Amino acid sequence: MENNTAATQAKVSIITIGDELLIGQVVDTNSAWMAQQLNLAGFNVHHRVAVGDTWEDIWEALNQESERANIVLITGGLGPTADDITKPLLCEYFGGKLVQHAPTLAHLEQLFSQVLKRPLTDRNRKQAEVPDVCTVLLNERGTAPGMLFEKNNRLFFSMPGVPHEMQGLMQKHVLPLLQQRFNPGIVEHRYLLTAGIGESDLADRIEAFETALPAFIKLAYLPHYGMVRLRLTARGVQNDTSVITTLNEQFALLQTYVTDVMVVNEDITMQALVGKLLKARKQTLATAESCTGGYISHLITAMPGASSWFTGSVVSYSNKIKETVLHVLSDTFTTAGAVSEETVIQMLAGILGEMETDYGIAVSGIMGPDGGTPEKPVGTVWVAVGSRKRLETKKFQFRYDRARNIEMTAVNALNMLRKVIEETHPL
Amino acid sequence: MENNTAATQAKVSIITIGDELLIGQVVDTNSAWMAQQLNLAGFNVHHRVAVGDTWEDIWEALNQESERANIVLITGGLGPTADDITKPLLCEYFGGKLVQHAPTLAHLEQLFSQVLKRPLTDRNRKQAEVPDVCTVLLNERGTAPGMLFEKNNRLFFSMPGVPHEMQGLMQKHVLPLLQQRFNPGIVEHRYLLTAGIGESDLADRIEAFETALPAFIKLAYLPHYGMVRLRLTARGVQNDTSVITTLNEQFALLQTYVTDVMVVNEDITMQALVGKLLKARKQTLATAESCTGGYISHLITAMPGASSWFTGSVVSYSNKIKETVLHVLSDTFTTAGAVSEETVIQMLAGILGEMETDYGIAVSGIMGPDGGTPEKPVGTVWVAVGSRKRLETKKFQFRYDRARNIEMTAVNALNMLRKVIEETHPL
Repeated sequence: MENNTAATQAKVSIITIGDELLIGQVVDTNSAWMAQQLNLAGFNVHHRVAVGDTWEDIWEALNQESERANIVLITGGLGPTADDITKPLLCEYFGGKLVQHAPTLAHLEQLFSQVLKRPLTDRNRKQAEVPDVCTVLLNERGTAPGMLFEKNNRLFFSMPGVPHEMQGLMQKHVLPLLQQRFNPGIVEHRYLLTAGIGESDLADRIEAFETALPAFIKLAYLPHYGMVRLRLTARGVQNDTSVITTLNEQFALLQTYVTDVMVVNEDITMQALVGKLLKARKQTLATAESCTGGYISHLITAMPGASSWFTGSVVSYSNKIKETVLHVLSDTFTTAGAVSEETVIQMLAGILGEMETDYGIAVSGIMGPDGGTPEKPVGTVWVAVGSRKRLETKKFQFRYDRARNIEMTAVNALNMLRKVIEETHPL
Repeated sequence: MENNTAATQAKVSIITIGDELLIGQVVDTNSAWMAQQLNLAGFNVHHRVAVGDTWEDIWEALNQESERANIVLITGGLGPTADDITKPLLCEYFGGKLVQHAPTLAHLEQLFSQVLKRPLTDRNRKQAEVPDVCTVLLNERGTAPGMLFEKNNRLFFSMPGVPHEMQGLMQKHVLPLLQQRFNPGIVEHRYLLTAGIGESDLADRIEAFETALPAFIKLAYLPHYGMVRLRLTARGVQNDTSVITTLNEQFALLQTYVTDVMVVNEDITMQALVGKLLKARKQTLATAESCTGGYISHLITAMPGASSWFTGSVVSYSNKIKETVLHVLSDTFTTAGAVSEETVIQMLAGILGEMETDYGIAVSGIMGPDGGTPEKPVGTVWVAVGSRKRLETKKFQFRYDRARNIEMTAVNALNMLRKVIEETHPL
């Protein structure tokens, strides 16, 4: 492989192998993760393809992707069981024969005796066999080794489909190797999150800005949960600092068009933004969740370090728990109903009292598909957010399926709280 | 289009369009959903490809997929903003010109005036333009219409990438149309979930069974969260009942090989299985979650109807909440620690008392990446499950990243509860 291809010209294809992807049993999260990491390192994925565990389809994918890319990343099809045909295929495709790889066998023996505490079977031992034409990439997190093949000035990386094993191989071997072989150019993104404006209206508003953008900067609209994220992407050769300067100027200019609808000018989730605001203020949050069933709490606690600002949640799925744990008055269910402004206000007071936090979020709604009435159809949600001093309530009417109604409720409740924090406690 | 191709011979390709998929900003959940629905209807996806918002790449994908498939499903690239080039491309590819589609315009006018309550802009109005060579599939859930093109005996369906809009179009138009045009053959799956046995050991154990399978039945291993799912798939021509009879016989035979490690002999999530067991027994559950932060509660409440057996959860992310809401003795944190058998036993007692349910789940652990100690490294989790009469505790040591440790904890805790319910309350 010669060293003269810049990363900006490098074309990456991803091939994922596995019947389970084609029958929809498994959602392909690997490709998104790989693309993100490659992007950060300055490499662009041009094409992604998924094929089943079928000899001809895998063979054809290798042929086609090597025509359009000079880096081909392959995941899946490397487990120990009989439905895996990828390794013998790669062996034949690159003209090698299977041989035992001593370091991999030693790793397997160590893994089985020390960690799994099971005897190594013949089937496991076969996983140490690799084509003699590849460079083995040791998989510290599992049994199937990664493999690097080179052919016609192209690099082919084969990795198992188990996400944390693939991720380990990417970080330890694939990305460092690509950065060493190629000269990564500049690929810089700037993100801006808006709320309360549709994609079309936003596009109308910034049309003049978009038209005047220099050719090396591209604008993209990324709608997500009823909010629109804008992305500016600049590309250039390594060390050309003017690219970044211009990108920053354009990004500052873009923000002047959307001051009133901008949530934040970085690539950050709503829950991470709320956490950042609370940490900076040394304040705390707890949630009282009915219809979201713990999803807001899950979004928050999925982030490391949330314990410094999040104390917990009461998921009051039944009305009785709203009464006994959150002290909602039982009369309220009769007079106003469980999905009402009165209920979420009392839930908020209850959680602020129980958890002794600075802020709280309380939600109650009808997520569907059942439970709607003419007065309160599916998608009706009441949200209360605030502190002991400041309360905001809002009624939403979502029109989606259960999963999306839950997500919309969570993101919008967090956004309501974000505004209250920024307004009541500016830094 | 002639009517003589059976669905079993029909080959489906999925093309997803969008830069956001190639930089990993968005995980492609559409493809999995589409593949599942097609599979249920007897159609097989052979190939899936993702390309960016680039004219040549989309054009080439259309060429290549129409060579290998007779049904091509396209999602994405149909929003109202300037980065969308799919519609003009499709127009040119199929040799048409853009014309205004009156029913779509009427739908847009109704949507903006009645639901969105905003004026219709020129940009929105452009969404009612369609190539004059397509059949328009009305998108009731959004602004971008679906389109059907036919060329060289092949069907091309174009749909927006917004999941709930795509899903509406698939259910209302695409699937009925495919079933009408093709003769769906038999594609039947049987699933079986095992726990406590690795993929290799399982494969060794059922090797004789697998070798003796008839050619029209295939076996696949689908590892997920430390458990292995087995799938038998039979294919045959429509109305050949012997295919199903043989499949059922083989499925019954397979179960005799795995009696001791089988969790359930259907395609059901662990949380749905627990719900099914509790509903049949008219019993209830509540959870006390520390390290899972509401994720178990979220898994449960993501299912419609969970309120009949799930009352709620206390997410006691801080120790203080473990004390005040769940009545864990403060001494316990000093003597045994927050991640200990003593703590989860008291959390379980606390949640059973607070929520007055038949069963409870309590978890406490260290999910990482920080917070580990030599005695309690990252991945250490204590779980307690049970009722007032029967208690089971177990210590787990997971070795993954934060997200996977949370998921492993949830699935394993639910599986512990599943066993307790089945043993203490057999039907």
